[in-house]
Amino acid sequence: MFIVKTTKESARRGKLTLPHGSIETPFFMPIATKGAVKTLSSFDMKDLGAQILLSNTYHLMLRPGLENMQAFGGLHKLMNWDGPILTDSGGYQVFSLSKMNKTTEEGVIFQSHIDGSRIELTPELSMQMQAAIGSDIVMQFDDVAAGDSDRSRYKEAMERSLRWAKRCKESVSPEQKLFGIVQGGTHEDLRAESVKGLTEIGFDGYAIGGLSVGEPREDAYRIVEAVCKLLPEDKPRYFMGGGMPEEIVTYVHMGVDMFDCVLPSRNARHGTLFVWNQKPSEIDFSDLPHSQGGIKGGCPPDFYSQLRITKQEFTLDEGPIDPHCDCSTCKNYSRAYVRHLFSVNELLALRLATIHNIRFYLALMKNLRSSIN
Amino acid sequence: MFIVKTTKESARRGKLTLPHGSIETPFFMPIATKGAVKTLSSFDMKDLGAQILLSNTYHLMLRPGLENMQAFGGLHKLMNWDGPILTDSGGYQVFSLSKMNKTTEEGVIFQSHIDGSRIELTPELSMQMQAAIGSDIVMQFDDVAAGDSDRSRYKEAMERSLRWAKRCKESVSPEQKLFGIVQGGTHEDLRAESVKGLTEIGFDGYAIGGLSVGEPREDAYRIVEAVCKLLPEDKPRYFMGGGMPEEIVTYVHMGVDMFDCVLPSRNARHGTLFVWNQKPSEIDFSDLPHSQGGIKGGCPPDFYSQLRITKQEFTLDEGPIDPHCDCSTCKNYSRAYVRHLFSVNELLALRLATIHNIRFYLALMKNLRSSIN
Repeated sequence: MFIVKTTKESARRGKLTLPHGSIETPFFMPIATKGAVKTLSSFDMKDLGAQILLSNTYHLMLRPGLENMQAFGGLHKLMNWDGPILTDSGGYQVFSLSKMNKTTEEGVIFQSHIDGSRIELTPELSMQMQAAIGSDIVMQFDDVAAGDSDRSRYKEAMERSLRWAKRCKESVSPEQKLFGIVQGGTHEDLRAESVKGLTEIGFDGYAIGGLSVGEPREDAYRIVEAVCKLLPEDKPRYFMGGGMPEEIVTYVHMGVDMFDCVLPSRNARHGTLFVWNQKPSEIDFSDLPHSQGGIKGGCPPDFYSQLRITKQEFTLDEGPIDPHCDCSTCKNYSRAYVRHLFSVNELLALRLATIHNIRFYLALMKNLRSSIN
Repeated sequence: MFIVKTTKESARRGKLTLPHGSIETPFFMPIATKGAVKTLSSFDMKDLGAQILLSNTYHLMLRPGLENMQAFGGLHKLMNWDGPILTDSGGYQVFSLSKMNKTTEEGVIFQSHIDGSRIELTPELSMQMQAAIGSDIVMQFDDVAAGDSDRSRYKEAMERSLRWAKRCKESVSPEQKLFGIVQGGTHEDLRAESVKGLTEIGFDGYAIGGLSVGEPREDAYRIVEAVCKLLPEDKPRYFMGGGMPEEIVTYVHMGVDMFDCVLPSRNARHGTLFVWNQKPSEIDFSDLPHSQGGIKGGCPPDFYSQLRITKQEFTLDEGPIDPHCDCSTCKNYSRAYVRHLFSVNELLALRLATIHNIRFYLALMKNLRSSIN
């Protein structure tokens, strides 16, 4: 299923084979939370070169719901997307979106953020929903601790996540690949215990969860580096929910293979666009020390910039958003046009900007892969 | 510039040649009010088979403004659209959008609906803005009366529109085609006077304005039929701002050549989709009497329906929105998916629905043209 083809120090280049196709690693997953990458269709995602999409168990469980998803025949058919899909388990969304939730050993009882109805989500139900969705990779249902929780809460959540991981493995549909999620906050010993427990159960891949939730970046870097050293080399590693381009570069160099992040699409909708400072194929990514990612408050990353397209200075700018980008927005439309569309609140602005930012992230991964040789 | 190639009773099939290309008539103009058909790009419009777009002087005068439009080099360049463009003059928007407006013989003083600033729009300024936009067809600036105005107000507006039409003709850029607008409300004698005054000045085409503003449909039918009999046969005739498919069919049979309407795009965004009740190429449009349009409260139009895609009954519907439609939405996505996207408020819903409804209107015109032989 997963072959590491080349390594360069800790960075790995490989191939992940899934029911709906093979993926070159390391890769980035655009987020189709509710069955669409916001403003884009499945054909747009193909055009952009996306290898796999990420969707969300929690959102799809609320609408269209388990029974409808089963009856319709899964998300691939619903979206008309024939490539691989990974689904998050819902654990994180229950933690971040529900007004009220109560965690027991059985699962989480929460209030729907849509209509306030009471729903119980368990490891088994998450597996059942992900089976109905038909995703290629399903994530274990986990108990997520974050923010100002004390160590005991992190320990409890990590240990419960291990027990739930076992229940997920026992109930997962056999044609789906199941990933365990390493928890433990910023406590290295808890993370090590989590890795040990998960690898004893044995999964098709391992994710690092509970980061990119507001912790200092140096803590995340420290944890990811430590965890990557403990994870088995023959399984894919997935950093969940992050991050900025320099973070992704850093994590790839630590040995992470998979990423997802709302930043490119969310920033696009706010008019913040990623642009290359030089031709991306000429960037020496291995020459970027961690300090460039901001670990030591050092120099900022210099291979890209963020452009606020809504600024007045772009009113008459005939050039593309990014002369180094090959997306359809950059090939066909000017900064002046995209700025105009934002200024008059045209929905097309969100679409053109999203196309560009997603392409930036996918091109980042393509160039990162090329650099591992 | 305009050749009538075939007629069938009063209906005409022809060709309109403009600086940016030739158009088969009768035709429908999708509305790119602020420089984009909502949710769609200029390439989408090409894919859909749009021959010409309509944009709006009032909106573009507010943003990006006259000076920016001049400096950038016009709307074709801004939108990256190389086909013809028609621009409305701003008269109607001043009337419908401004909180406060005061009409003098010189022009209209109004308050911007964006920032409340005081702006004066005159026939000359409208021509100057439309020259900056670089539209192929520019509409005269007119004084619009509507609603519960009494006859004297309609007479005043019609007469002032005639005087402004003359000023527009004197100030229009020579490479642009200028259309006069017939006014006079639902008063046939005022309409006749308007036609007489406009044809004496002489324009490249004639529009029927001040309808589709809430009047009973039979009044609009009566006026359009009367006006078409008075208008010169060798110039294109444009019904402004309407309407439903059966209205367009009716007007084409009265001899109208050009249409624009927000209905397909606005209804799409509200989840109301036009669908054919039979293969459109097999509809005998000449067999549709006016009564089918609802003039006499007779039978409803039976060649199409309106489908509320948000209805629960479509939750598991694997079929396309319209099996008779060749748009990319119908070719690639199910009713179930479009319904799901509406139910979870995904912006892609608006785009997929708009693509379909615009294609419906363009296909309606294509089939109407074929029926005139």
